[in-house]
Amino acid sequence: MHSTTHYTRHHLFTSPPALSARRRASLRSASTVRMALREDGPTVAVVGVTGAVGQEFLQVLSQRDFPYSSLKLLASRRSAGKQIPFQGKTYTVEELVPESFDGVDIALFSAGGGISKELGPVAVEKGAIVVDNSSAFRMDPNVPLVIPEVNPEAMSHIRLKGRNGKGAIIANPNCSTIICLMGVTPLHRHAKVVRMVVSTYQAASGAGAAAMEELALQTREVLDGKEPTCKIFKQQYAFNVFSHNSSLLPNGYNEEEMKLVKETRKIWNNDEVKVTATCMRVATMRAHGESVNLQFENPLDEDTARQILQKAPGVVIIDDRELNNFPTPLGVSNKDEVAVGRIRQDISRDDNRGLDLWVCGDQIRKGAALNAVQIAEMLL
Amino acid sequence: MHSTTHYTRHHLFTSPPALSARRRASLRSASTVRMALREDGPTVAVVGVTGAVGQEFLQVLSQRDFPYSSLKLLASRRSAGKQIPFQGKTYTVEELVPESFDGVDIALFSAGGGISKELGPVAVEKGAIVVDNSSAFRMDPNVPLVIPEVNPEAMSHIRLKGRNGKGAIIANPNCSTIICLMGVTPLHRHAKVVRMVVSTYQAASGAGAAAMEELALQTREVLDGKEPTCKIFKQQYAFNVFSHNSSLLPNGYNEEEMKLVKETRKIWNNDEVKVTATCMRVATMRAHGESVNLQFENPLDEDTARQILQKAPGVVIIDDRELNNFPTPLGVSNKDEVAVGRIRQDISRDDNRGLDLWVCGDQIRKGAALNAVQIAEMLL
Repeated sequence: MHSTTHYTRHHLFTSPPALSARRRASLRSASTVRMALREDGPTVAVVGVTGAVGQEFLQVLSQRDFPYSSLKLLASRRSAGKQIPFQGKTYTVEELVPESFDGVDIALFSAGGGISKELGPVAVEKGAIVVDNSSAFRMDPNVPLVIPEVNPEAMSHIRLKGRNGKGAIIANPNCSTIICLMGVTPLHRHAKVVRMVVSTYQAASGAGAAAMEELALQTREVLDGKEPTCKIFKQQYAFNVFSHNSSLLPNGYNEEEMKLVKETRKIWNNDEVKVTATCMRVATMRAHGESVNLQFENPLDEDTARQILQKAPGVVIIDDRELNNFPTPLGVSNKDEVAVGRIRQDISRDDNRGLDLWVCGDQIRKGAALNAVQIAEMLL
Repeated sequence: MHSTTHYTRHHLFTSPPALSARRRASLRSASTVRMALREDGPTVAVVGVTGAVGQEFLQVLSQRDFPYSSLKLLASRRSAGKQIPFQGKTYTVEELVPESFDGVDIALFSAGGGISKELGPVAVEKGAIVVDNSSAFRMDPNVPLVIPEVNPEAMSHIRLKGRNGKGAIIANPNCSTIICLMGVTPLHRHAKVVRMVVSTYQAASGAGAAAMEELALQTREVLDGKEPTCKIFKQQYAFNVFSHNSSLLPNGYNEEEMKLVKETRKIWNNDEVKVTATCMRVATMRAHGESVNLQFENPLDEDTARQILQKAPGVVIIDDRELNNFPTPLGVSNKDEVAVGRIRQDISRDDNRGLDLWVCGDQIRKGAALNAVQIAEMLL
């Protein structure tokens, strides 16, 4: 996690300053010459660019020197005309219409499920590859649901039209699923997960930038003894925990929980795995925590688990029992890696087939924008 | 939960005003005449009266019209001399010394494990019954560990010295254990819990009044872009979640988690029950949330579970799927009852022997002071 150590520890939710992208890129490889805007790159569109994830798309594209020959910033009519600086140029946000996708190779969507359902297929029809951050197509059997470190093979048949491919949709999994499976999949590959019990500690950012602002506003109000403003959520969020605000299904699980159940099965291509989840929102800004109890088919001790996770791409272990230093939502905020700690043998089992973990990841970054850009990178 | 409805919903952590105790007592029974201070009552001492739990002892004693013939308020030398009004009289806090317990019938201790270890046996020697809120004696096989709604029989042999009894210690369980078992025991009695996976969302109050103040202070500092003051905890608490600050044991569990494991076995008088727990602190003030996954020996469906919990003393069900209304730490703050919701069949099991629950309870109240006073009431 070397690349973001210059952020202050109490950094709340603002985007990192423009300069740090440059610095981080240079940290990664001293000899890198920035060549993001170049003629042989794909044409890229960002849909929903004014949202929390949309803004993070730009950060991540820039930090990773994603190549592009042109860039379109798209949003609703309300935001059209807004000026956004990006890599030394100023872009004007354009209103999102079907014609927006003419000539677009890669479209990163994060404007809600309704927009994705309506305009995703239009973009595909015009030959674009849509990387969709909404839930609209995740469970569509024809749409790959991809975490690049976990199941890149699911999208191996998809190619850009300039490379004998054609338009297609690739779905970005839900944030809780990505963060959970980043920590769990390496262990699953080794000892096969039979059952997983997950309890989440989810941040405001999953409900968008306005929810983050409301949490900050409410917190101030409560500290000042005022009634908290409740517009995004129907109840006080500051100094509270509440069951995830998604709809409840007849089985008593909410939609967020069922995403963890169903997306895990699809991503692992394994209909047998048993998952139960309880999804809660806690008063954090942009990173989720998840308490994960795992039951394996084969024996797995905690030392082996640690060795496996040490080699896992995109994962860092923070697990210092002596200093009581473990992953926190704040500690992983604005970081790329998912942090795993509290790795221990489940003492409620005596068959060496259980582990408990605590996993944290930045919801906007690996939980959304970074994962989508990594998917796009696999198309290059 | 009628008795506390006059508190504002965003009430943070201040104690309720003195008048409301009177009003609440009168709400409970219109014909009650306050007879708390009376000649035939026991002599009572409150040890650690200036702490968060100590203050709550006074609230609860008053609200429940606990009878006493005299009251001693004890604390460290630093707090000695402080004046505390209680039920129309003003008491002077006395320095805690061995002689403090001369003539005391019931001593409510909440001044840390060190004080309990040192002076608990002294009080017992002098004939007092000590109700101890610390962890000092909880696992002592000679000391009953009691939740009055769960295992009152464990203390049935203990009597006040005025009733042919003698000095004794009764331990108050840890807050997380009390809150968890209040919701789970009624179901355990019906279908027998085989295994329990708990993830906690714990409030600042468990670390005392100073931790609550630090959380409020830090939150203000972070909102103002300042470095947060970290005195009680070594890391930022505001807008964060971190693994419980208790020591880690060689098995990778922290002490808080092992309390849940061991105390559950002792309280249920059942060495077979399998428990694993992950204990986290979240940025809430005085009430804990717990996500509980249960495996039963016998079948138990969610409707039966709901019927059982509806009749359970000290438990309220808040489980409105339509309105997405479930227990929250804020909602149970300053309330006596433990709230249970998100009651549902565990979809990771197909044998009708699994349930998921979400439980919330006030950490200072049922998690500490109320439970201790209820224990004392059983001695009357």
